[in-house]
Amino acid sequence: MKWVYFFGEGDTKNKALLGGKGANLGEMTKIGLPVPPGFTITTEACIEFYKQGKKWPSGLKEQVEENLKKLEEKTGKKLGDNVNPLLVSVRSGAAVSMPGMMDTVLNLGLNDQSVQALTKQTGDERFAYDSFRRFLQMFGDVVLGIKHSRFEEVLENKKKTRGVEYDTELTADDWKEIVEEYKEIYRKETGKEFPQDPKEQLRLAIDAVFNSWNNKRAITYRKINKLPDDMGTAVNVQMMVFGNMGNDSGTGVGFTRNPATGKKEHYGEYLINAQGEDVVAGIRTPKHIDEMKKDLPKSYEELVKIYELLEKHYRDMQDFEFTIEKGRLYMLQTRTGKRTAQAAVKIAVDMVKEGLIDEKEAVLRIDPNQLDQLLHKQLDAEAKEKAEVIARGLPASPGAAVGKVVFNAEDAARQAEAGENVILVRTETSPEDIEGMNAAQGILTARGGMTSHAAVVARGMGKCCVAGCSDISVNEKARELRVKDMVLKEGDWITLDGGTGEVIKGQLPLVEPSMAGDFGTLMKWADKFRKLGVWTNADTPHDSRVARDFGAEGIGLCRTEHMFFEGERIKAVREMILAGDEEGRRKALDKLLPYQKEDFKGILKVMEGLPVTIRLLDPPLHEFLPNTDKEIKELAGEMGISEEKLREKIKSLHEFNPMLGFRGCRLGIVYPEINEMQVQAIFEAACELRKDGVDARPEVMIPVLGHVNEMKVMRKLVDRVARDVMDRTGVKVEYHVGVMMELPRACLTADEIAKHAEFFSFGTNDLTQTTFGYSRDDAGKFIKEYLNRKILQNDPFQVLDRDGVGQLVKMAVEKGRKTRKDLKIGICGEHGGEPSSVEFCHNSGLTYVSCSPYRVPIARLAAAQAALKSE
Amino acid sequence: MKWVYFFGEGDTKNKALLGGKGANLGEMTKIGLPVPPGFTITTEACIEFYKQGKKWPSGLKEQVEENLKKLEEKTGKKLGDNVNPLLVSVRSGAAVSMPGMMDTVLNLGLNDQSVQALTKQTGDERFAYDSFRRFLQMFGDVVLGIKHSRFEEVLENKKKTRGVEYDTELTADDWKEIVEEYKEIYRKETGKEFPQDPKEQLRLAIDAVFNSWNNKRAITYRKINKLPDDMGTAVNVQMMVFGNMGNDSGTGVGFTRNPATGKKEHYGEYLINAQGEDVVAGIRTPKHIDEMKKDLPKSYEELVKIYELLEKHYRDMQDFEFTIEKGRLYMLQTRTGKRTAQAAVKIAVDMVKEGLIDEKEAVLRIDPNQLDQLLHKQLDAEAKEKAEVIARGLPASPGAAVGKVVFNAEDAARQAEAGENVILVRTETSPEDIEGMNAAQGILTARGGMTSHAAVVARGMGKCCVAGCSDISVNEKARELRVKDMVLKEGDWITLDGGTGEVIKGQLPLVEPSMAGDFGTLMKWADKFRKLGVWTNADTPHDSRVARDFGAEGIGLCRTEHMFFEGERIKAVREMILAGDEEGRRKALDKLLPYQKEDFKGILKVMEGLPVTIRLLDPPLHEFLPNTDKEIKELAGEMGISEEKLREKIKSLHEFNPMLGFRGCRLGIVYPEINEMQVQAIFEAACELRKDGVDARPEVMIPVLGHVNEMKVMRKLVDRVARDVMDRTGVKVEYHVGVMMELPRACLTADEIAKHAEFFSFGTNDLTQTTFGYSRDDAGKFIKEYLNRKILQNDPFQVLDRDGVGQLVKMAVEKGRKTRKDLKIGICGEHGGEPSSVEFCHNSGLTYVSCSPYRVPIARLAAAQAALKSE
Repeated sequence: MKWVYFFGEGDTKNKALLGGKGANLGEMTKIGLPVPPGFTITTEACIEFYKQGKKWPSGLKEQVEENLKKLEEKTGKKLGDNVNPLLVSVRSGAAVSMPGMMDTVLNLGLNDQSVQALTKQTGDERFAYDSFRRFLQMFGDVVLGIKHSRFEEVLENKKKTRGVEYDTELTADDWKEIVEEYKEIYRKETGKEFPQDPKEQLRLAIDAVFNSWNNKRAITYRKINKLPDDMGTAVNVQMMVFGNMGNDSGTGVGFTRNPATGKKEHYGEYLINAQGEDVVAGIRTPKHIDEMKKDLPKSYEELVKIYELLEKHYRDMQDFEFTIEKGRLYMLQTRTGKRTAQAAVKIAVDMVKEGLIDEKEAVLRIDPNQLDQLLHKQLDAEAKEKAEVIARGLPASPGAAVGKVVFNAEDAARQAEAGENVILVRTETSPEDIEGMNAAQGILTARGGMTSHAAVVARGMGKCCVAGCSDISVNEKARELRVKDMVLKEGDWITLDGGTGEVIKGQLPLVEPSMAGDFGTLMKWADKFRKLGVWTNADTPHDSRVARDFGAEGIGLCRTEHMFFEGERIKAVREMILAGDEEGRRKALDKLLPYQKEDFKGILKVMEGLPVTIRLLDPPLHEFLPNTDKEIKELAGEMGISEEKLREKIKSLHEFNPMLGFRGCRLGIVYPEINEMQVQAIFEAACELRKDGVDARPEVMIPVLGHVNEMKVMRKLVDRVARDVMDRTGVKVEYHVGVMMELPRACLTADEIAKHAEFFSFGTNDLTQTTFGYSRDDAGKFIKEYLNRKILQNDPFQVLDRDGVGQLVKMAVEKGRKTRKDLKIGICGEHGGEPSSVEFCHNSGLTYVSCSPYRVPIARLAAAQAALKSE
Repeated sequence: MKWVYFFGEGDTKNKALLGGKGANLGEMTKIGLPVPPGFTITTEACIEFYKQGKKWPSGLKEQVEENLKKLEEKTGKKLGDNVNPLLVSVRSGAAVSMPGMMDTVLNLGLNDQSVQALTKQTGDERFAYDSFRRFLQMFGDVVLGIKHSRFEEVLENKKKTRGVEYDTELTADDWKEIVEEYKEIYRKETGKEFPQDPKEQLRLAIDAVFNSWNNKRAITYRKINKLPDDMGTAVNVQMMVFGNMGNDSGTGVGFTRNPATGKKEHYGEYLINAQGEDVVAGIRTPKHIDEMKKDLPKSYEELVKIYELLEKHYRDMQDFEFTIEKGRLYMLQTRTGKRTAQAAVKIAVDMVKEGLIDEKEAVLRIDPNQLDQLLHKQLDAEAKEKAEVIARGLPASPGAAVGKVVFNAEDAARQAEAGENVILVRTETSPEDIEGMNAAQGILTARGGMTSHAAVVARGMGKCCVAGCSDISVNEKARELRVKDMVLKEGDWITLDGGTGEVIKGQLPLVEPSMAGDFGTLMKWADKFRKLGVWTNADTPHDSRVARDFGAEGIGLCRTEHMFFEGERIKAVREMILAGDEEGRRKALDKLLPYQKEDFKGILKVMEGLPVTIRLLDPPLHEFLPNTDKEIKELAGEMGISEEKLREKIKSLHEFNPMLGFRGCRLGIVYPEINEMQVQAIFEAACELRKDGVDARPEVMIPVLGHVNEMKVMRKLVDRVARDVMDRTGVKVEYHVGVMMELPRACLTADEIAKHAEFFSFGTNDLTQTTFGYSRDDAGKFIKEYLNRKILQNDPFQVLDRDGVGQLVKMAVEKGRKTRKDLKIGICGEHGGEPSSVEFCHNSGLTYVSCSPYRVPIARLAAAQAALKSE
């Protein structure tokens, strides 16, 4: 088994084996960059190390020795040598980068002998002993677990004793004394002498790096980033180079382009006469890379060439580290650089222009989730650094918002009308809060998950929302919210970051989003490649407009229930519910008809020429009834019935599990007059628009359907009412009737249902609820724990569960198309705007995805990537 | 197309085509019974009649004429003849018997001419005109839709005028006058003359029978009996014979055995000098069939032979009609006779003894659902006829109960202890009512379906229950129940019939069930044939005992939550829920441990040598908390916390959809200490019993599981705790760990789950809820309507839905066995005791079904039938 690769033996194709860093160093060496020589111990060796109960696999010792010999030959130095000693770094390097999570040992090879050789070699005793004490400190901390503070105390005391402020003011003798005191710490803390044998040092350091794969930090990092625990880390042993060998030395980090803006410019910083950790530690302030031109002109010239070489070779922006040792430039590391969304888009588009990559690659380069940054107001990054984060909830809807706290929807609406910026804070929201949510800058709730009412509605509105913030407790009555001991009252300022879930006290400045020209270019490319249609979920002309501007090609879900809540309508709705018979219901519904018709006209007009899928009434009727004593009293008065009777009616409509209750087409079948009114409104709207020359294209979607016989009944109803309206108006409107596929039984019997349905649209929110048996309003209690413990890899309400829900989706697609070859199939759950779910939809042969307006660009990009990946 | 078959051309193999009656008459003719000749118009002709908009299909007219000619030739009579007139009956006859639902016309062929011929022929003018007036009356009513009462008035007036009481006292002249008056009614009601042409009479009568297939009665009957609407009826045209031609004539009905008891004896009754409808109408009291021996000895002798012939040929008890015309016996009809459960069992067993059928056929003969009658107390049939049924609910749990009304569980328990028989009446029941339900004779609820809490628990207890009785409204506070204007108070007597759902005012006598020897014999035969195991759902030693006595071979579902409600336990449960941390929970759980252990010991002991599948805690915790102000106050006092805090806790545990909430293994994963206590109790119980030489066989079942990772976690927990107990006690107990399959996702990923599970048990109640998206507590509102409108063929909570839920079951069986060949698979939902669902389980390859104790014999029989049918 080959456990060790000398730099240049492998390249980035061997990333899994050599880790990111090792593979890169190999590749860099191969392409001729000035990399300090070294070798990589493979991740397989690490995996084997754990398998064998933290023992080196057989052969590893010998291979390390062989490669060490090769290294010594190549550098002409020798580990622990008292003439020309080799010093090495020992670094971790997993296949997927986990920056700063695992351990590193620098300057390994120093001991009482070699430190003197180093002194001689460099003629700089102070540097040699400074290096030695650095090594002692790091080795003690990382390899032997001695507390960092123990060493720091000694150093601080020394500086006090010497009356100096900075390390640089200490002399060689000071460092020598410190070295001796450090050795004393080793004795006290470990009961043993500091290991003078450099080979033992190396062995222990390699062990330490292996072990650091499973330190707490690393495990947590992997948990957060959803990385597997069994990949192991490689170990890179590399000749040390020193940036602290005087003013012809230095060290720095750089990016081949500006990672914040994407601009093609030299970006980076360096320190003269310093080691790498000094840059990272931020003790001295580094200089801009272009200043090297005068400080170290030769190295600068070399570096400029390397910028070009790196981009040409890697065809992406690189993030690299370098060191200059006595005028000689060494490249220590390079990797694909992280960047902002804005930079990502600009770099991708620029690189196409520069001929480095093609359009497909540009499209594949952007993380669709990152696009969200470009579509919402953001907190000013600088201001945020100093902000007081008082609580943290779920990042339910991106963007940022600043406003005064209000505790109910009416206050929100009233104060917003008066020109105030407000944040609506509620324990949880309900459909009655819609108006207030709409008026607020942002929404903060103490309960509910990523698909709670607040979250779903806020995303639909493109409005910032932090949901399920269990750190706070809201007292709507007293109009205050508590976070630990802090109390915020109505009118206090808060700021929300919907992208991180942070709640900040006070007023922070916001940055406006900009839809740059590059963004548009990229989207056009994406549209060329994608096969999936991208539609939107929109209930108002405004949302429809926003979505259409973002590129939506239709409405996949227009909910009609939100329309029932505003102003006068809710009265008619309640009158309908409280009516004792069909006649009474019809009378109330007649009042609603003109409102609904106007709603539909507005939306159909904005979406002219594109399909608008209108879902018939979905929620159970009790959602429209009041639930506080005050409201009940009011309503009873308005309706002219006794409070007692009203309460009785409310009680009789109460459901134990409304999610599984009397809703959707069940309502439409038992009380056909409700859906009749809706269908009439849809077709009157469409016919009137057609008369005015507007190409209105309604589609009617039946919700909560589980049995083909329900479809037969509803289909008949829709066709009959549509025909009536068309006969009456003398206008013909093409339309389709389809099903919201949101129950397992609908998927299981899709072949039967497709006989009577012209399209399917997966309502994966409810399908996830029924398939898992999770109520999205209640599951927060255990889903969090399940994610922590990796029982679930993802929240299934965020990322479509391919193994379970996905099977039903695939089954329904297959069965549906078996019956009806040209069946149009979409998805209109929240998943329609989530990239990995979009990929699944593409792979499952769906016709389109439908998502909230602000996710339309994300879905377009994700759809393009899915198509390219499956090419 | 052959539309018409002469009797003898077809037999019972042609039942679908000729209808039951036509096929039987054909068969009877074939085997040599003295059947009056005639012919049958096929059901296909009827179907075609409807297809063509109520017109005769082409060729039918000609074939009717041909067969009529043949009939005239055979009888030597002629329709409408003025010398030897043929009279015929025209009767309906569908493939599946719908007794009395469709129309019949007798004495067709009479008119002003033929009535005189009949007079001459029989020398009985009175009879001839009586026949004519009967025909006029029936023809007018059935064929022309003239109200029966119009004719009755005339008859009554005539009797008044003549000063007589009975029809028989009227003279020939009276009848003649009546005939004329009847003709006048025809003129007034239809504007036309009575049709004298017998062929027109025949045509119209055939039309009328066709039409009667879709009269209201027939449609309702088919709806109730779940018969298809498109089968059509055949029409039988048959020579009339007259039982009213003097004292050497008569008519009667008989059974070849006693249909009430099953005894092999002549059973039947007859009337001298009467027509068939006189027997049915019940105006004259018929005599027992054996009295014919002296009244009509020749015919009696013939009939005795026919009894034998019928049973020998049909190999089942027959229900037949006969007429004797002037000493000549005619058989008019025979069919398999309906019988009580007791008779069904006795006849089947006797016929095996007699060599008429074999054991397999005997087992196949009994309707498993009917067995229920044999297992519960019943209302005295005679008393019930006179009873005042005040309301009708769902027949939720069979049997009958008599008691005084009480309105809460405590009253029920207290009064029952004091020796009262009580009926617990609630709007709906909850787990806290268990004790009261147990103490009551029966349970009546105003809300909830066939699988509501009340229904499920009552069936489990084998206790009579009428659920979802929406006719009544219950006011628990005022302790009264209202039915329309009637008010019943605490202490008023009511009687429930759980088999019909009827609620009766007052006290009715009950009949004890008897487990006859024949029943045991039949069950033994069933056990020989069945492949499915039959287990039971039982939560107490008592229920386990009952089930074992009924033949249960194990416990498939032992719910543990019911055990949490009794007396002191609920306090500890609440303490556990209200504890702020794990330590507090463990302290409370320690108090529960000894109770649980004793529970399990009791059950494991009764079930010695048989598997006992114990399901870990299933319901959400809030089910254990109080919900009335009074209870909250009390509990807060007991727990020593403030009411406010308690309310807060209750609020925080509240769920919008508890069915899809924080329950089952989700609880066990987040609070492992709960399940740890339960597993510890199970294994301590088993180990202690083993020490005492009792062969305890626990199986541990994980509820509400949807993901293989949940299984991994729970499996580890169970194995760890079990090993701990066994190590501690030094006793080894074999056990298995399995899954309650009740979520679609579990079925979809059964292959993964089976890697860690040794058995599956389908919880088809919850699986139906999630697959359909129906909450069983709420769905009553629309399921009733769905059944009425045939959107659903069956209530899916009663009969397993093969198309949807069944697909998931089959998928899980297939996937599960692919991973683990010897996977034990059962069902423990309510469906486990429903015969058609049992058949589905057999066909799907399940290992066993588990049902409530009182359904065990039903499941045994159903399982045997399923095995025999699929042989």
